[in-house]
Amino acid sequence: MTKKILIVGGVAGGATAAARLRRISEDVEIILVERGEHISFANCGLPYYIGEKIKDRSKLLVQTVNGMSERFNLDIRNLSEVTTINPDTKHVTIKNLQTGQSYEESYDKLLLSPGAKPIVPPIPGLAENKTLFTLRNIPDTDKIKAYVDEHNPKRAVVVGGGFIGIEMAENLVERGLHVTLIEMANQIMAPIDIEMASILHTHLQQKGVELILENGVKQFKQQGKIIVLADGREIETNMTLLSIGVRPENELAKTAGLKLGERGGIIVNEYLQTSNQDIYAVGDAVEVVDYISGTKAMIPLAGPANRQGRIAANNMMGKRETYQGTLGTSIAKVFDLTVAATGNNEKILNRLDVPYEVVHIHPSSHAGYYPNAAPIALKLIFNKETGKIYGAQAIGMDGVDKRIDVIATAIKGNLTVEDLTNLELSYAPPFSSAKDPVNMAGYVAANIKEGELEQVQWHEIDDIVTEGGLLIDVREPMEREFGFIKGSKNIPLNALRNQLEQIPRDETIYVSCQVGLRGYLASRILKNNGFKVKNVDGGWKTYSSVFG
Amino acid sequence: MTKKILIVGGVAGGATAAARLRRISEDVEIILVERGEHISFANCGLPYYIGEKIKDRSKLLVQTVNGMSERFNLDIRNLSEVTTINPDTKHVTIKNLQTGQSYEESYDKLLLSPGAKPIVPPIPGLAENKTLFTLRNIPDTDKIKAYVDEHNPKRAVVVGGGFIGIEMAENLVERGLHVTLIEMANQIMAPIDIEMASILHTHLQQKGVELILENGVKQFKQQGKIIVLADGREIETNMTLLSIGVRPENELAKTAGLKLGERGGIIVNEYLQTSNQDIYAVGDAVEVVDYISGTKAMIPLAGPANRQGRIAANNMMGKRETYQGTLGTSIAKVFDLTVAATGNNEKILNRLDVPYEVVHIHPSSHAGYYPNAAPIALKLIFNKETGKIYGAQAIGMDGVDKRIDVIATAIKGNLTVEDLTNLELSYAPPFSSAKDPVNMAGYVAANIKEGELEQVQWHEIDDIVTEGGLLIDVREPMEREFGFIKGSKNIPLNALRNQLEQIPRDETIYVSCQVGLRGYLASRILKNNGFKVKNVDGGWKTYSSVFG
Ligand SMILES: Cc1cc2nc3c(=O)[nH]c(=O)nc-3n(C[C@H](O)[C@H](O)[C@H](O)COP(=O)(O)OP(=O)(O)OC[C@H]3O[C@@H](n4cnc5c(N)ncnc54)[C@H](O)[C@@H]3O)c2cc1C
Ligand SMILES: Cc1cc2nc3c(=O)[nH]c(=O)nc-3n(C[C@H](O)[C@H](O)[C@H](O)COP(=O)(O)OP(=O)(O)OC[C@H]3O[C@@H](n4cnc5c(N)ncnc54)[C@H](O)[C@@H]3O)c2cc1C
Ligand SMILES: CC(C)(COP(=O)(O)OP(=O)(O)OC[C@H]1O[C@@H](n2cnc3c(N)ncnc32)[C@H](O)[C@@H]1OP(=O)(O)O)[C@@H](O)C(=O)NCCC(=O)NCCS
Ligand SMILES: CC(C)(COP(=O)(O)OP(=O)(O)OC[C@H]1O[C@@H](n2cnc3c(N)ncnc32)[C@H](O)[C@@H]1OP(=O)(O)O)[C@@H](O)C(=O)NCCC(=O)NCCS
Repeated sequence: MTKKILIVGGVAGGATAAARLRRISEDVEIILVERGEHISFANCGLPYYIGEKIKDRSKLLVQTVNGMSERFNLDIRNLSEVTTINPDTKHVTIKNLQTGQSYEESYDKLLLSPGAKPIVPPIPGLAENKTLFTLRNIPDTDKIKAYVDEHNPKRAVVVGGGFIGIEMAENLVERGLHVTLIEMANQIMAPIDIEMASILHTHLQQKGVELILENGVKQFKQQGKIIVLADGREIETNMTLLSIGVRPENELAKTAGLKLGERGGIIVNEYLQTSNQDIYAVGDAVEVVDYISGTKAMIPLAGPANRQGRIAANNMMGKRETYQGTLGTSIAKVFDLTVAATGNNEKILNRLDVPYEVVHIHPSSHAGYYPNAAPIALKLIFNKETGKIYGAQAIGMDGVDKRIDVIATAIKGNLTVEDLTNLELSYAPPFSSAKDPVNMAGYVAANIKEGELEQVQWHEIDDIVTEGGLLIDVREPMEREFGFIKGSKNIPLNALRNQLEQIPRDETIYVSCQVGLRGYLASRILKNNGFKVKNVDGGWKTYSSVFG
Repeated sequence: MTKKILIVGGVAGGATAAARLRRISEDVEIILVERGEHISFANCGLPYYIGEKIKDRSKLLVQTVNGMSERFNLDIRNLSEVTTINPDTKHVTIKNLQTGQSYEESYDKLLLSPGAKPIVPPIPGLAENKTLFTLRNIPDTDKIKAYVDEHNPKRAVVVGGGFIGIEMAENLVERGLHVTLIEMANQIMAPIDIEMASILHTHLQQKGVELILENGVKQFKQQGKIIVLADGREIETNMTLLSIGVRPENELAKTAGLKLGERGGIIVNEYLQTSNQDIYAVGDAVEVVDYISGTKAMIPLAGPANRQGRIAANNMMGKRETYQGTLGTSIAKVFDLTVAATGNNEKILNRLDVPYEVVHIHPSSHAGYYPNAAPIALKLIFNKETGKIYGAQAIGMDGVDKRIDVIATAIKGNLTVEDLTNLELSYAPPFSSAKDPVNMAGYVAANIKEGELEQVQWHEIDDIVTEGGLLIDVREPMEREFGFIKGSKNIPLNALRNQLEQIPRDETIYVSCQVGLRGYLASRILKNNGFKVKNVDGGWKTYSSVFG
């Protein structure tokens, strides 16, 4: 029987496991060791405290050492670091960071939830940079906030366009700074694909963020006051936030001889056991199985960490619950927009050489006739033969989280794109349309699967037109004044049936419109009149998010 | 081959079918016959136009006769009523309501989407009531709005507390009227159960709506200026809206000899064919299969009508697509609150004698530390043995639609309550918590299924205490100042472990707290110390929504 459990790391995975353990048993001894001062804090809220959206610092502390010790009868040792594990004798060494003294502690089962740490590459000038920050915990937060409060910096550079980088860019803008965001890739926000990210690029720029893509930091000069970019360009700044990703906290596991994956994540089986059966590991530090592709992945998110913490607790106490893998459902607020994604994106599927089909639609968040409806750019990725859903991405002002959550649920339910058409989602004008955007994405995808709709993508159409393909823009002439795909010929949809004679029958015809719907209608008219036809998926809206 | 299709009814089901038919074929002749002036209008938006939330009347007209005829090459005959069907000769009689002339029209396939009409019982004084309204279409809307605009009525009575009644109550309040809502049942909003509806009762009253339950209209006096209630009470009013439900428009089907169900709905098979194989029917007029219980039901909602319209179109053109039944997912805005539900409620399950278990939780719409989080009252109904989800209900200011849609999707994916714990939903502080409310409902339900948690319901605890049961309220003394369950003894959660000696071991102990969470923690402490214990599900919050 498990009598004594020691947990390394007292935040998302660790604290959740501790609470669950106590609920399972009043008898087990639970020691929670945390290097920092704080346990159980709201990592995810840190950027918003700096931006003063969250005003009260104490709100970041979901639980305190005293509160949680008392409620769950835990032995919590904060400001204490586990420095080594001896799996043979089942002991750890703990260093009290206040006294500097180390001591041994035994365990029956050990849980590692040490998290991850910001990647800090050896950039020249880094050591001398006095205004360089990373953000992971409360002390980091206090430092950044104090710097902004006290020094009133005018300019900030955020290096890295992931979640934390983008959230910090927003929150620093909220504090009145001019922010430059530097990203090495050709897009920010890796979970989504480039045509979706392009919407965010435009929005960030509208909000005054200077965006520098495909560029990196080569050097810091003048104690960080000057940043030299890979292309030689120099940027002045008063502060720099480095947020180019995280690396698993794996030192402890490594020195204990636990197996690590290629990217340094602790390897666990489906019961969240490491290569040592008495040592479990969860959270940002572990390598997970990608739920869609079945490949190995690192997905450092709070939901999975919490879920794994509970499952590991169950299993340490003798249950046999499996962790199903991580879908990677993620979301961020980006000023007025929300961006969310679930499952695999095109980049991943291409890398894995998985064939897929894509649909882009632009439905309203709710009935267009009810006030404040806003468009959602919704992308669905699926298998054309089986209808299996690989993933989805969405951006908009409202209702984005709902649609991605519904699709994430559909994926877990093994639903196909046809099944999406049959989802019965709640409808009244303030909330949705009689056909919800998710139903609609399902309809379009099902039409592709059934061969009723053939498409080309935004990145294919220019070449097709250049090579002489006929592209018919079926919008009204007025709409074209705001832009159109070069080389397209205009025949408004309602005039199409009367102009069929002018359209060649011996080649594939391409059609496009504003969002894809009228193009689809045109494609049906043409197809049912014997033409070969393909619709530009997502219409001008998707095309112009990159090329507009 | 199908050459000519005639559609009766040109709004949700009918217009959708017409559009889909044309997309399937350019050759089929499509005649759409609509009794009213308008086709394809936004029924669901009508109350909001009266309330002036929707300002522009033309926004209610999603499509016009001309626009839709042109786009889809349809023969639309509005202000025309199909008066008889002759299934043997496959002809209908159409009466032109402008000229009064009738003529015959043949069909290969006929689609009925005639909708439903407001129930108007033969109340004494009804014929003389000059200010009695019902709301189904644009002319109804114009009448009500004109009356409000021109006569500036001070008081309105809404009879019937379903969706339309509640939406109208709100919109009339928005127009400055004092509204009295009369409902025959002991609760408004039939899709939810009474303890959930009680939250709405309180909210409506806070918004100035006078709510009269378990009472009906016996008589109208003085041309409707006085309403006499069943209990003899008299109410003065300037106008009355009758919204006590709808009845299928089944005259045509009945006289054509089509089979009707007990409640008058046209009977269709899974292909949406009526008892005559060339006549299909969809929408409010048909009897559907309840997706959860498999029993017959009437569920007059726009999503199902639209979905059925498309499926019927497919099938009339030779496909064999089945309609899966109706889950009854529904939603309404009620002033600052949203109420939504999916699947079966307790009332239905009790009627069908299906055993079930219930969970009430009160999580935040998003992370509590991020501004504007608001509680959601979320109820999950499930089978304790199998974990099958029967239904869910939710009320709150924000994020209600999302949670109900996720659960509706889970139901369609055949997911169990355990599966809800494994849903990977999008989390960042503005949108959710690391454990989403849906995950949380899953955890609580799974604990019940596993026997880790035993509960009593809000309606059971008073009797238990009266009969001498020991109820321990584990909240802080301060919290009890706002109310507590009569007869409960206070032992704050954190003090519980030290007071175990004072708690009798020979009887079941009942525990309660604010929302159920601390009660659960207390129940674990007690259970793991050898006590028999049950938690009051949903805590004081659920209990007090009825008894508070
Ligand atoms: C700024 C920020 C914003 C975020 N926003 C989101 C978001 O919106 N949504 C989302 O899903 N996720 C978000 N995350 C990620 C989320 O916080 C993590 O995925 C989650 O906290 C991981 O949980 P964990 O238990 O693995 O690690 P952590 O929560 O980081 O906990 C690990 C703890 O272990 C301690 N530790 C490490 N080694 C030792 C040792 N040897 N001895 C003792 N203690 C040790 C560390 O001090 C740390 O406190 C965000 C993270 C950050 C930093
Ligand atoms: C005020 C109001 C608010 C609503 N709000 C919501 C909501 O928020 N969410 C939701 O899901 N649902 C809502 N509904 C319900 C929704 O509008 C209906 O479920 C849906 O319209 C049903 O579609 P249908 O095609 O069956 O009938 P309808 O849309 O009503 O169309 C039937 C049409 O057939 C015509 N017709 C009938 N008989 C004949 C005949 N013999 N010849 C010619 N024409 C004929 C009628 O004139 C009518 O226009 C609301 C309804 C109303 C009235
Ligand atoms: C605070 C913390 C320790 C709480 O852990 P926890 O006790 O497992 O979680 P909660 O307080 O949400 O309670 C969940 C438990 O209560 C139960 N519960 C919740 N509401 C309930 C209700 N109304 N009735 C009965 N039980 C209920 C759940 O079933 C669950 O119990 P189980 O795991 O035994 O099934 C942990 O979540 C934490 O440290 N969070 C902050 C760190 C973090 O996650 N950071 C990243 C995100 S910012
Ligand atoms: C207006 C109305 C006639 C439209 O019917 P519709 O053409 O079927 O519906 P939509 O305009 O939403 O278009 C949906 C079609 O476009 C396709 N589509 C939508 N977006 C697309 C895109 N971006 N790219 C390609 N195709 C797209 C869908 O696949 C679907 O086609 P399918 O049925 O052949 O698969 C009908 O919805 C109606 O009358 N509505 C008002 C009445 C009503 O519903 N009232 C109750 C609610 S208030």
